[in-house]
Amino acid sequence: MSASVPETMSASPPETMTAIACPVPGGPEALVAETRPVPKPGPGEILVRVEAAGVNRPDVLQRMGHYPPPAGAPDIPGLEIAGRVAAVGPDVTAFAPGMAVTSLVAGGGYAEYCLASANIALPVPDGLTMIEAAAIPETFFTVWSNVFDRAGLAAGETLLVHGGTSGIGTTAIMLAKAFGARVIATAGSAEKCDAMLALGADRAVNYRDEDFVAATKAETGGRGADVILDMIAGDYVERNWRAAAVEGRIVQIATLGGKAKNLDFTPLMVKRLVHTGSTLRAREVPFKAAIAQALHDRVWPLVAVGRVRPVIDSTFPLVEASAAHARMESSSHVGKIVLTV
Amino acid sequence: MSASVPETMSASPPETMTAIACPVPGGPEALVAETRPVPKPGPGEILVRVEAAGVNRPDVLQRMGHYPPPAGAPDIPGLEIAGRVAAVGPDVTAFAPGMAVTSLVAGGGYAEYCLASANIALPVPDGLTMIEAAAIPETFFTVWSNVFDRAGLAAGETLLVHGGTSGIGTTAIMLAKAFGARVIATAGSAEKCDAMLALGADRAVNYRDEDFVAATKAETGGRGADVILDMIAGDYVERNWRAAAVEGRIVQIATLGGKAKNLDFTPLMVKRLVHTGSTLRAREVPFKAAIAQALHDRVWPLVAVGRVRPVIDSTFPLVEASAAHARMESSSHVGKIVLTV
Repeated sequence: MSASVPETMSASPPETMTAIACPVPGGPEALVAETRPVPKPGPGEILVRVEAAGVNRPDVLQRMGHYPPPAGAPDIPGLEIAGRVAAVGPDVTAFAPGMAVTSLVAGGGYAEYCLASANIALPVPDGLTMIEAAAIPETFFTVWSNVFDRAGLAAGETLLVHGGTSGIGTTAIMLAKAFGARVIATAGSAEKCDAMLALGADRAVNYRDEDFVAATKAETGGRGADVILDMIAGDYVERNWRAAAVEGRIVQIATLGGKAKNLDFTPLMVKRLVHTGSTLRAREVPFKAAIAQALHDRVWPLVAVGRVRPVIDSTFPLVEASAAHARMESSSHVGKIVLTV
Repeated sequence: MSASVPETMSASPPETMTAIACPVPGGPEALVAETRPVPKPGPGEILVRVEAAGVNRPDVLQRMGHYPPPAGAPDIPGLEIAGRVAAVGPDVTAFAPGMAVTSLVAGGGYAEYCLASANIALPVPDGLTMIEAAAIPETFFTVWSNVFDRAGLAAGETLLVHGGTSGIGTTAIMLAKAFGARVIATAGSAEKCDAMLALGADRAVNYRDEDFVAATKAETGGRGADVILDMIAGDYVERNWRAAAVEGRIVQIATLGGKAKNLDFTPLMVKRLVHTGSTLRAREVPFKAAIAQALHDRVWPLVAVGRVRPVIDSTFPLVEASAAHARMESSSHVGKIVLTV
């Protein structure tokens, strides 16, 4: 459904809804449909009738029991949604029922209705479908806050991004290019390398065939990458430090590769690197609201003109969330996996 | 000899001098006196007749063959000197023969004469002996650039400093206190803890008896340290991350404890830490000149009124440099070890 086609809203939301829960941690099949009460928006909140919900790696970790929801967040997975406002909290004036919105949420996205903060929700960008809109928040908030705010990527600098065909990776490639950086991206197949180049990456590295350290050095005249966005850790830490330029910034957003073994901090000192990182989910509303404002001001116009656009890998009906997780865990996807309601 | 008592300068420096070299890497006895030509100041340089030279940990590493001098630097150890200007390069106007100066140098301090950059040398602060003046540059440049510039320690924040009785440690305690921070310092004996408290540390931790992570948490109401100055690395990395506050900054200036084993980067992400570091010696003159200017403007007045003062552990005649190194390697010193010429 297009965001530009409003539809009639029922007078009030129903009492119950279908939601996807994971009462017992486990594999993809641990996700099961349940009937839950429809939440009521409190002060500063809006209730969204979900039309699409993005699937993210933390949802998989949560399902496995490795990433419990923060205090106060729903136990239902799902960190981003798009849909229409169904009701608003008592003091909310910026949104009204029927408006098409997309929002980062602290959980609860895998459901027919979901609460969002009025300070974090954004209008669906012009010309985007609800599916595309639902594919935006988690990766755009993450890339903006880490690559641009935390690591300060500047025009003319070089970004090295791992997992270049993930939702985070595709977003990082597009945003970095849109803001004038050079991008080197890694992935594990020739097809994925082609996809990264099609998104604008200046150099695609198939890590199965090629050493990304040598490739990064070659691509930068020996200088190295100014910013590295990494979700691997493990033995990538030492290699990222070798691939980094003097005064380079490495931003850690996950540790899928586990612990670093025998890590010598001398290169961090000698190259004066900055290794930092962050998680998004547990941050407070004012922080997320500030990112939402920056995205609205600086990125929404690029989305509206098609300069930046979420890459959709596949969609699954809400009740087939298990299949969506299985696809994510296969790591064969390029771009975002989205549930439709 | 006091800096306030000028002395007669000979018309021109001699052709040769005594210097301490380490022609074959080894233990303290590898340091041997040699006769070397007195260097000639080129553009931007001054020749200093050395009266005192500080001993630093990198000198020990250099003697062992683990820390070769950077390109263009003398092979003679010694990173800081104080003395009187003996000659100036063709374009130098800020210094004249006879002036009492102290300077960070890229090497060559263990000698009767040593070249310094006119942009890095500073006047000996009022009231300091040459021995005290020679004990300032390496630790003050290092602490200023890492703790204040790189890590941005602010008044009201908490600094955790390891090796609190080393030259770096004593300087960090005094400067952090002088600029309004709270200081927690670690060392390996009750005597050293007393020395750190006498220098102004708010809390001294004897790491042989007490866990510095728990002590730091207790001292900060569970919050953790905002800035950590570390020269250990190894298994301190994970413990520093636990001792750090959210958004804390860890600055690595050496890795005396070797590599970190099995390091999980999750705490770095969850607490949004910044782990960075630097080395001073290989930096270019403009960088060091900027630190020199900042020290002159912001720290020299504190030194002149006695608010900050280098801590002298012991002095040794130049030709007994081996004994000075043996004392440093015993790690029983508190403050700086200085050679006198």
